[in-house]
Amino acid sequence: MNDSVQTAVVGVTGYAGAELARLLLHHPRLQNKPPIFAGRVDATDAARGGIPLAEIHPELADSKGSGGLRQLPFSWELLTDLGAEVLFLATPHEQSREWVPEALKRGMRVIDLSGAWRLVEAENRAVYAFEDDGTELAASTQAQAVYGMPELHRKQIAGAKLIANPGCYATSVILPLRPLVAAGLVDLEYGIVVDAKSGVSGAGKAPTAKTHYMYAADNLSAYGAFTHRHTGELLEQIGLSTEQIFFTPHLLPIPRGILSTIYVRFREPQTRASIAQVYHRFFAHSPMVRIYDKALPQIQYSVRSNYSDIGFQLASDGRRAVIVSCLDNLLKGASGQAVQNLNVMLGWGESEGLE
Amino acid sequence: MNDSVQTAVVGVTGYAGAELARLLLHHPRLQNKPPIFAGRVDATDAARGGIPLAEIHPELADSKGSGGLRQLPFSWELLTDLGAEVLFLATPHEQSREWVPEALKRGMRVIDLSGAWRLVEAENRAVYAFEDDGTELAASTQAQAVYGMPELHRKQIAGAKLIANPGCYATSVILPLRPLVAAGLVDLEYGIVVDAKSGVSGAGKAPTAKTHYMYAADNLSAYGAFTHRHTGELLEQIGLSTEQIFFTPHLLPIPRGILSTIYVRFREPQTRASIAQVYHRFFAHSPMVRIYDKALPQIQYSVRSNYSDIGFQLASDGRRAVIVSCLDNLLKGASGQAVQNLNVMLGWGESEGLE
Amino acid sequence: MNDSVQTAVVGVTGYAGAELARLLLHHPRLQNKPPIFAGRVDATDAARGGIPLAEIHPELADSKGSGGLRQLPFSWELLTDLGAEVLFLATPHEQSREWVPEALKRGMRVIDLSGAWRLVEAENRAVYAFEDDGTELAASTQAQAVYGMPELHRKQIAGAKLIANPGCYATSVILPLRPLVAAGLVDLEYGIVVDAKSGVSGAGKAPTAKTHYMYAADNLSAYGAFTHRHTGELLEQIGLSTEQIFFTPHLLPIPRGILSTIYVRFREPQTRASIAQVYHRFFAHSPMVRIYDKALPQIQYSVRSNYSDIGFQLASDGRRAVIVSCLDNLLKGASGQAVQNLNVMLGWGESEGLE
Amino acid sequence: MNDSVQTAVVGVTGYAGAELARLLLHHPRLQNKPPIFAGRVDATDAARGGIPLAEIHPELADSKGSGGLRQLPFSWELLTDLGAEVLFLATPHEQSREWVPEALKRGMRVIDLSGAWRLVEAENRAVYAFEDDGTELAASTQAQAVYGMPELHRKQIAGAKLIANPGCYATSVILPLRPLVAAGLVDLEYGIVVDAKSGVSGAGKAPTAKTHYMYAADNLSAYGAFTHRHTGELLEQIGLSTEQIFFTPHLLPIPRGILSTIYVRFREPQTRASIAQVYHRFFAHSPMVRIYDKALPQIQYSVRSNYSDIGFQLASDGRRAVIVSCLDNLLKGASGQAVQNLNVMLGWGESEGLE
Repeated sequence: MNDSVQTAVVGVTGYAGAELARLLLHHPRLQNKPPIFAGRVDATDAARGGIPLAEIHPELADSKGSGGLRQLPFSWELLTDLGAEVLFLATPHEQSREWVPEALKRGMRVIDLSGAWRLVEAENRAVYAFEDDGTELAASTQAQAVYGMPELHRKQIAGAKLIANPGCYATSVILPLRPLVAAGLVDLEYGIVVDAKSGVSGAGKAPTAKTHYMYAADNLSAYGAFTHRHTGELLEQIGLSTEQIFFTPHLLPIPRGILSTIYVRFREPQTRASIAQVYHRFFAHSPMVRIYDKALPQIQYSVRSNYSDIGFQLASDGRRAVIVSCLDNLLKGASGQAVQNLNVMLGWGESEGLE
Repeated sequence: MNDSVQTAVVGVTGYAGAELARLLLHHPRLQNKPPIFAGRVDATDAARGGIPLAEIHPELADSKGSGGLRQLPFSWELLTDLGAEVLFLATPHEQSREWVPEALKRGMRVIDLSGAWRLVEAENRAVYAFEDDGTELAASTQAQAVYGMPELHRKQIAGAKLIANPGCYATSVILPLRPLVAAGLVDLEYGIVVDAKSGVSGAGKAPTAKTHYMYAADNLSAYGAFTHRHTGELLEQIGLSTEQIFFTPHLLPIPRGILSTIYVRFREPQTRASIAQVYHRFFAHSPMVRIYDKALPQIQYSVRSNYSDIGFQLASDGRRAVIVSCLDNLLKGASGQAVQNLNVMLGWGESEGLE
Repeated sequence: MNDSVQTAVVGVTGYAGAELARLLLHHPRLQNKPPIFAGRVDATDAARGGIPLAEIHPELADSKGSGGLRQLPFSWELLTDLGAEVLFLATPHEQSREWVPEALKRGMRVIDLSGAWRLVEAENRAVYAFEDDGTELAASTQAQAVYGMPELHRKQIAGAKLIANPGCYATSVILPLRPLVAAGLVDLEYGIVVDAKSGVSGAGKAPTAKTHYMYAADNLSAYGAFTHRHTGELLEQIGLSTEQIFFTPHLLPIPRGILSTIYVRFREPQTRASIAQVYHRFFAHSPMVRIYDKALPQIQYSVRSNYSDIGFQLASDGRRAVIVSCLDNLLKGASGQAVQNLNVMLGWGESEGLE
Repeated sequence: MNDSVQTAVVGVTGYAGAELARLLLHHPRLQNKPPIFAGRVDATDAARGGIPLAEIHPELADSKGSGGLRQLPFSWELLTDLGAEVLFLATPHEQSREWVPEALKRGMRVIDLSGAWRLVEAENRAVYAFEDDGTELAASTQAQAVYGMPELHRKQIAGAKLIANPGCYATSVILPLRPLVAAGLVDLEYGIVVDAKSGVSGAGKAPTAKTHYMYAADNLSAYGAFTHRHTGELLEQIGLSTEQIFFTPHLLPIPRGILSTIYVRFREPQTRASIAQVYHRFFAHSPMVRIYDKALPQIQYSVRSNYSDIGFQLASDGRRAVIVSCLDNLLKGASGQAVQNLNVMLGWGESEGLE
């Protein structure tokens, strides 16, 4: 077990990057080893030694300025010279496809927040249309990847060189469904309906027609029914076939947070207690999952935390249930889970730096 | 066919009441017969001739003040003396249960916006626990009630004395589902899932913990799974049994608008064209329904209009569909539909005063 | 006085354009002469006869589709052939500088919603850096321009060929201040402070870092202190010098609406009644201004209307006042005022089509 | 210097109380001494040992439930028995007036978040209408009170028995103005204008017409011009007379955060550097104030932090400035400042537990 580690972050400028920076800067194990931030830096900024973090994210400034932290011009030499041991990539998936093999070659362990290495089945990866799919390098890299959901794959994560950090929607659906499906309770013939809603930060920082305030505010819109990229993760991690799940994401007029409403039918009638027991057992050693025994969780309860909140209501016949799952898409759905994976990788307390 | 009619409104102080006042004040047929507003008025206000409408709803003031319109102290004598012919009740259902029989006795036609007279089956009414249920008066009144959804019951509305104006959620679900179920397309064995989301005005004007800005903003919460009052309307108007439908409402952080996401399975594979045809035929003479042939509707498109917007996406196997239905809960979901019913009752153009 | 007129709109795709289209489509005088919409149309769309209005703004669709209205490819020949008499330009100011002289040459009357022709003094125009400033054509065009605020310039508007429609912030400040300054009440030595706040639609439809939902929501930011483009309009229309006014705009997390809080000191002590009288006299014949005699106006009261709302509170010494002014930036602050100008130009009722 | 201390909180159920609980639970010095929570507890809840904190504020639950923390029925005996040394009162001011003398008598040090003990001058307290004002006990208690703004009164706070924790608006105005006024730069004859805007949490947790989502959302309203309770704090702490300041608060449609826009005139022309120097000197040892040397602060930058952010823009003549001040009303404006005061009282690092 390491006492500390030298981390590096590529992609600090986005929303997930900002959260990742905040978490790493305050992580108790990293107080003497601030992360290296690297990325695109133009000549002017390079001349002044990089871009102060406080200019990129003013809310991260301490009162005496940026404390000297800067985004440096990315280069592999820089990362090697500065001794990067664990590399976080909060980059587009195309970039992660390209960079992960190089980082592994250089002996770094990688936690990749993109969708580049999450999917084992070629047909599920098709939606990404990776240019290198089918190459030997891609195949050998994929073979090393572990799906970074500690609640399901804690042991593999501990030894992994490459963590494929899960998608935000996928996390909000896999955690509540996996225990019930694995226990054989769900009648899959009826199919499962997942109606998911996410705040706007999930759509990324690039200004587009859909992230314009006037589009998102006072509105709700469904998108990507039957076609969302995260569907493949659901199939592989829960163990479902395409026609067994409806998954429709919606864009909520809030900055952050996901609520997924999940509709299932059971093979046999269940009670509140029987379902609760399945959950409590499955997550007995998972500090970042909260099971709601009475009320349903709401987005507000988990926003700005790394918790995944799960609650449910049963129909009076015990055959049907509505499950409500909430989390913060930038934390448990991205950067918080990435830090949780870091903790598990290094043998630290799973929730260190996350409370 | 009447050229005009004397309307009266009880319950102008709420959100639906404000919209109803606005619509009636601008209705082309009512320009010379402004509505009578009646309700609770204390002694001080009674002494000055009622409460100016511009004090209750400043946004309804014209530039020269309230134009003399006031909420008068309610009494049956007042309504009779002023010649009220059509009475709108935007009142709690308990009050509507009590007042509707009296209004009918006095020869007024009534459009009741509450849930008091919408349900034919006693078991569906159970959730309301009406004190007078089972009495002869209640039974004979219920027998006169017509469910006020012109797209389904245009002819009965034309001759009705009592219109039970539909619930907002119910309208958003019945309109998209009734055509498909009536055509025998939906495989009811699989059940239908309705995931509905409404803006805060649906929760009423009374300040409560749930309507507090801090509760609703930046949040999303599910409530009333398996137990919502509007479920009975769905069962009766679509023709379903309890276990054939999941209905879960959610509270959206927006002022107004409903979006219902509806999941169905078909008996036989369908095409976009086959579904579109069913809708276009069913609503061929319905000016207030818009079918989306390409994109899905969003809440913004129908808010502040009386339109019900319906769109859908099919799975590639043609066996499953996601239907998205949007409307303004205060207009098509309440006061706009009430005015639409008025138009139909009086033989006027169905969308007069609604565009 | 004309019974009707053929209007044309360039720039229907933006927020002000959508409101302008809505107003003109419902204007009682224009029911038989729908406006011509012209603008940029690519080859594919041109081949199908233009872009359906219902595709550009789905909320403007009627239930049977777009009713045939389309944005046509802009050309002067088109406008001439179709008989355009009044041309509305909801275009960037650079384009308005170029097009207005041509439109006037072709005998059209123009209502320009941009800042191109609002400013008489060269130093106030400096902030726009018009390329043609100083040319004879620009000077002669400017000489024909009337500042389109009917409450101040009703007579000149009636006869004008070119209306420079006021800025949204400027309207919210000029209307409450002009009467007090013109009456000589304000002590200008102390200066006037205007703290103005606008919804996001004021920042335009182009997706930018500042219009991103994540920037605007749950936030408030000041911008352009001492440098906002609308300042010149304040100086010219109220009659102030630069150092007599502080003007700071802020970006509010709401879709639409402006609230300006204005701080003044009086030469002599005033009473509520004395100030109210000045306002009521000044706006005696102005149907689109509402003076609040008791409470202060709020953004909600005027949003989605063409009203300018004005209220005030006096300090107990009668020497200082806080004035609150509200309007809808897309209506009284843009398209509504444009239609008001149309009405005045053509001798119609000033508020026709605006209630 | 104490290593730790036993704290107690009365009033954990409100918004400031929730933040205070969160801060104290995570404070590094208090890890072995969780705070005592006391308040109104009914018989049923008392019978089960108090109300679990996780029921009052679900977002404070850890994954294994509330960790045993509960709100206990308030009594002085309880506090004494449990060894309370520092008592935080997040209670209405009437209650703080009554309880503070008792707590002092029992030897506790008190940090009172209400307005009960902030004002020295009787005329400034008049707005509160304290029943006990003028009594000897009230006078002697007031004499012990220190205004809890460490940036101004660090030394007195260190030795104080009673801290009157400042108001949220007051903090956002005093911090940016005190340095300039104290340095003699501001021309007070012209007066200072403060246009302040606060999120809805500032209005408290009680559901009222003004905290209803429908009132606050998509709106902005001014209130309490010339009459706000916090004005007295401005006068006493900055050193102004009533007619030297305009202070108008507004209700922003956001959950939390205050932005105050402040307009001043200087006696002599200033430069950016001269003003910046005044601020940097004044706050040289204040870790919770951030001076913005380039851009202006925005609400988002300081929300959910304990920072007070200050920026400014100068007119080109150097005689006038607009100052923008931002903070989180529940943290630096309430509970964060209370913990900052705790740190100073006990000789701990001023920002411990606040980053």
